[in-house]
Amino acid sequence: MSEPGALMAAEIGEQPAALQRLLDAREEIAETAGRIRARGPRFVVLAARGTSDHAALYAKYLAEIRMGLAAGLASPSTFTVYGSRPDLSGVLFLAVSQSGGSPDLVDSLTVARECGALTVAVTNNPSSSLAEAAELSVDVRAGAERAVAATKTYTSELLALALLLAGPDGTAALPDAAAATLAHDAPLTAAARYRFAARLITTARGYSYATAREAALKLMETSYVSAQAFSAADLMHGPLAMVDPSVPVIAVMSGRGGATMSDVLDRLYGVRADVLRVGDDDGLPLATDGVPEHLLPVLEILPLQRLAWRLALDRGVDPDRPRGLAKVTSTW
Amino acid sequence: MSEPGALMAAEIGEQPAALQRLLDAREEIAETAGRIRARGPRFVVLAARGTSDHAALYAKYLAEIRMGLAAGLASPSTFTVYGSRPDLSGVLFLAVSQSGGSPDLVDSLTVARECGALTVAVTNNPSSSLAEAAELSVDVRAGAERAVAATKTYTSELLALALLLAGPDGTAALPDAAAATLAHDAPLTAAARYRFAARLITTARGYSYATAREAALKLMETSYVSAQAFSAADLMHGPLAMVDPSVPVIAVMSGRGGATMSDVLDRLYGVRADVLRVGDDDGLPLATDGVPEHLLPVLEILPLQRLAWRLALDRGVDPDRPRGLAKVTSTW
Repeated sequence: MSEPGALMAAEIGEQPAALQRLLDAREEIAETAGRIRARGPRFVVLAARGTSDHAALYAKYLAEIRMGLAAGLASPSTFTVYGSRPDLSGVLFLAVSQSGGSPDLVDSLTVARECGALTVAVTNNPSSSLAEAAELSVDVRAGAERAVAATKTYTSELLALALLLAGPDGTAALPDAAAATLAHDAPLTAAARYRFAARLITTARGYSYATAREAALKLMETSYVSAQAFSAADLMHGPLAMVDPSVPVIAVMSGRGGATMSDVLDRLYGVRADVLRVGDDDGLPLATDGVPEHLLPVLEILPLQRLAWRLALDRGVDPDRPRGLAKVTSTW
Repeated sequence: MSEPGALMAAEIGEQPAALQRLLDAREEIAETAGRIRARGPRFVVLAARGTSDHAALYAKYLAEIRMGLAAGLASPSTFTVYGSRPDLSGVLFLAVSQSGGSPDLVDSLTVARECGALTVAVTNNPSSSLAEAAELSVDVRAGAERAVAATKTYTSELLALALLLAGPDGTAALPDAAAATLAHDAPLTAAARYRFAARLITTARGYSYATAREAALKLMETSYVSAQAFSAADLMHGPLAMVDPSVPVIAVMSGRGGATMSDVLDRLYGVRADVLRVGDDDGLPLATDGVPEHLLPVLEILPLQRLAWRLALDRGVDPDRPRGLAKVTSTW
């Protein structure tokens, strides 16, 4: 048995190298991207679970903003429980999975392919069932991930999706930017503040919404804190009622999404909420030199992974082996 | 000032009559449905916030299962923050809003219309900006809603969407079934159990996932409990780690979605979770005689609205006037 949290710490630290490894394969991904473009998809459907679902959410914004296509997240149960067989011609069906082994995703992708969709698997295992079931596949090349809480596979999925849907512009800056971001120790200091928090809210807008969702999941699965993510707009519609000084908020402030969050912050400060900002001058620092806006989520999650790791250890939990979870989840 | 909770209680009780009022207008909705069909949409994009977003989630399942179309929930910020202008020809863009007054929804729908989508507004205010901006609109006829926590507008939105996307089959049974469901007092008794709960999880699958989401929001906005909704499949991917005997779970068991939840329940019982079931023999009762599966969400939410109402009063909160919330929310 390794020291508690040693696996997760190592995998967090490996991210700059993993991103570089993926960039070294960018020609191959560009070829896959060309094959997708040649088919001229009209609509993008994204299928994933857990951490990969947040990479899929990021891809939804890429599809809408960078490709100019309407996009939606799949509801796999419409195929697997209700037996729906929609006409998916003109649809790009993109499944994202670290293991490529979730049976419900393989089933959904198989049905989508039968229904006429162009199917693409983005996984960390090019010989997985998901990759084999798909017409095209992308290997995110993150290397084996041993901690149950996914870290490097998440950022590698984000970068693979960016290369696939938005192209290589700006991606070369990411490995150094990730390393510089990981060099800041502010996240470890910040973790102390949440030692006794029972619940926590994360919020963001636009591309960064995926970061808020993934940060909440990371905190839940490693520290068992009840963390909830809301898009900044949704937070104003109801959940704001439960925010008070006893419920800390983590707000991702980078990019244009963050720039539109001042109203939300005003409301939060108005109820004397405890707000930790990420990615602006008053918050946890990101190193973003040369990194275009659509790639910021690759960096934003890094301090929050470290915060979740530190908090889990502070609470006496081994973040490498959260209770009740397995690395590959079978859903039906 | 009325007695605390009097408005919400009255509006919960009005639902059978509101559903009947909407059914009396089914010919008009059928005509709108015919105009949508005539345009032969290929994809459905749904836009909404708050409670109406859960009605939109229900509509996603209707579109996929009953219309055989791929469907997704809109991310309004891609239009409003990032200025994306996708080609939306062949897209049915359906906006759902109680007030029809949220500026960001009006903006999103206006952009979608400019981008070639067939735009339809489903609102409780036929002279709202949203209804006027849309090519077609449906009035859900719920009558004025005065409590901040939406109840009757939610079930009326669900029924309007079912009439629009799946047709009138089986809808005639709903008013009586809703009245019979509301006659059961088990939800009021069940509320006592949560008097001191700080957090709570709701879960469901398929059509009923909308119910889990809406129940969580209702509990958050009226009782300030930290309620989180997970699709049953997502719950297995991470969040299960934070479930233990101190975190109660509400599981919606009706329909085929519920029938596939036995694995999830086994896991929950395995960690000795406190589970309240809705809609099966061991849970809060629903009266479902003659009601087809796709309409069950109209009934499932009723006992949970009453539970949220009772719990708020027990906790000394006026559910008609939750702190920090206004009836129409402006997001940008």
